[in-house]
Amino acid sequence: MTITQKSHQAYPKLVTVVGAKSGEKVNYMAAAWHTCLSHTPPLYGVAISPKRFTHDMIIKSGEFNCNFLPFNKLELINATGQISGKDCNKIDVLNLQIEQGIHINIPFISDAYEVIECKLKQTIKVGDHTLFVGEIVHVEEKDDIFRENRILNRQNIYPTLYLGSDTYITIDKSSIVVLPRD
Amino acid sequence: MTITQKSHQAYPKLVTVVGAKSGEKVNYMAAAWHTCLSHTPPLYGVAISPKRFTHDMIIKSGEFNCNFLPFNKLELINATGQISGKDCNKIDVLNLQIEQGIHINIPFISDAYEVIECKLKQTIKVGDHTLFVGEIVHVEEKDDIFRENRILNRQNIYPTLYLGSDTYITIDKSSIVVLPRD
Repeated sequence: MTITQKSHQAYPKLVTVVGAKSGEKVNYMAAAWHTCLSHTPPLYGVAISPKRFTHDMIIKSGEFNCNFLPFNKLELINATGQISGKDCNKIDVLNLQIEQGIHINIPFISDAYEVIECKLKQTIKVGDHTLFVGEIVHVEEKDDIFRENRILNRQNIYPTLYLGSDTYITIDKSSIVVLPRD
Repeated sequence: MTITQKSHQAYPKLVTVVGAKSGEKVNYMAAAWHTCLSHTPPLYGVAISPKRFTHDMIIKSGEFNCNFLPFNKLELINATGQISGKDCNKIDVLNLQIEQGIHINIPFISDAYEVIECKLKQTIKVGDHTLFVGEIVHVEEKDDIFRENRILNRQNIYPTLYLGSDTYITIDKSSIVVLPRD
């Protein structure tokens, strides 16, 4: 088949909302191209188009955060990807509740069940996007989102997964399988 | 909280099985750290530890593929991550059914509903992992896995999501939400 913009996206993807700050301006943008990259040091990567307002804000601030919001907030998540911070203050327009960052100077979204705070370490051009590699300096979590063995506690959390074309889905609690390790 | 190996992994993650070939040896390895990186050119990235057998195979072959397998194949997927190709031929041990690659010289797994074939373009050291950036040269899909608008057809496909600690989950078909684009 022809390789189209949507043919190689490997859906579904966990959605994150990337936060950045430049001067007094704070902005958030939904992103689906992100991944863990290293254990030691703990590194997290987010690929963002230079066309996005958030792109230059991350370069200026040298910091970013990744806010993971539950499925019942998907309209909010989607909205952060639909409007540009160039034209408005998304915090006001979307009535975002935020809290002061713990180890970085960027506030996080109060509704997030998990927030990864990063200091920018590498900025790598990859095709038409920039991969921002951040060193994780803090992880903020809602109480009880993980069980003892660090498995996401799906009794509490419904993560938000993106299927493309403004379509979202979440996990099926009843489908969980724990495989024995030989 | 302390940043541990499992505290910053942003579960659940879509699982892929990365294939590589060196000489006559073909190997597959489950991986959860991967993401789309660029539309034009179409680039896909996979982060792999240098400790893994697959790591040097990708460097040698200059190619790799990403096999996306359905949830009912999760024992197979998990097994590819539990044993090393250094010690055995996983195709024999796991009785993997494979088919000849379309645009690269690496076979893909017949059970995959989607396969991304990549030519290695960039090899980037990021902390204790290597990010392999591949240019997508072909996408092989099972018939009817996408609907017209390229949304994953969840009537047919249950993707495999990893929750950490050998635990897997899939999507809830009934939870899908399509948001109107303003």
